Amino acid sequence: MNDPNLLIRPVTAADDDRLWAMLEPVFRAGDSYALDPAISRADALNWWRGGTHRAFMLDDGVQSLGSYYICPNQQGGGAHVCNCGFVTAPDARGRGVARLLLDHALTEARSRGFRAMQFNFVVATNTRAVALWQANGFDIVGRLPGAFRHPDQGFVDALVMYRHL
Amino acid sequence: MNDPNLLIRPVTAADDDRLWAMLEPVFRAGDSYALDPAISRADALNWWRGGTHRAFMLDDGVQSLGSYYICPNQQGGGAHVCNCGFVTAPDARGRGVARLLLDHALTEARSRGFRAMQFNFVVATNTRAVALWQANGFDIVGRLPGAFRHPDQGFVDALVMYRHL
Repeated sequence: MNDPNLLIRPVTAADDDRLWAMLEPVFRAGDSYALDPAISRADALNWWRGGTHRAFMLDDGVQSLGSYYICPNQQGGGAHVCNCGFVTAPDARGRGVARLLLDHALTEARSRGFRAMQFNFVVATNTRAVALWQANGFDIVGRLPGAFRHPDQGFVDALVMYRHL
Repeated sequence: MNDPNLLIRPVTAADDDRLWAMLEPVFRAGDSYALDPAISRADALNWWRGGTHRAFMLDDGVQSLGSYYICPNQQGGGAHVCNCGFVTAPDARGRGVARLLLDHALTEARSRGFRAMQFNFVVATNTRAVALWQANGFDIVGRLPGAFRHPDQGFVDALVMYRHL
């Protein structure tokens, strides 16, 4: 996407409706995030943009296309590795939103002094995500056998993916 | 240990002093748990036995020898895999405490319906722990390169270990 109107900026409380519109279908589907599919709107928003998470939103001047959060993956001796989560608005799929968000996240991570980025739990059946992360420098450094109960496919593996920054 | 006085039972608030006496040296050392080495007593106790964690204590009739917690490692589609953390009292090291606690944890995990146990972040330099887990059915299913900043050894790997129940 080369749209000059594209802008990634911090999420604010005014984004709650837009953010929930993205998160709800993904969390309810229960096939990618290891969260209770029945999670409440409030809990979902608090998780996405609360605690140690810092969340960003991608707008195109008309609507919001996607969001991501970044946070330290561990504390203490593990605090130099960050973790991120990504979501694309339902009507913005197939437009390269995740890639744009990842580019921003990698820059943001470096500017915050993180030395690596880790995804703890990429559902192996989410092949588009796995391929995207691999194309952008992430290695599969771990495989958790049967660690995810997929709503349609039963017990499937989850992957740990990692890249240095 | 075949001491008939050994008992593993749930942690209560009355255990705070005993529990902190075990946790403080381990957390302050900062070489095994990915927690802030300066963590407060209150935060440490809340983390060990609060939230989704359920904590147990091993006593020998005279003193407390060790403790562990068990919790779901993920929510939703990942809630069938548990996570545990273990600590041995400083003056009880070398007596097989971790092994006793692990045996209890495996039984507890099965009785709670968990299908697997995962350790997310075993510092690779903690070779005694790695060997103990391997001797008890855990596989190294992931290696996080340089994910832990060891206070003496600099950046070292952390391991993801996993076993079915």
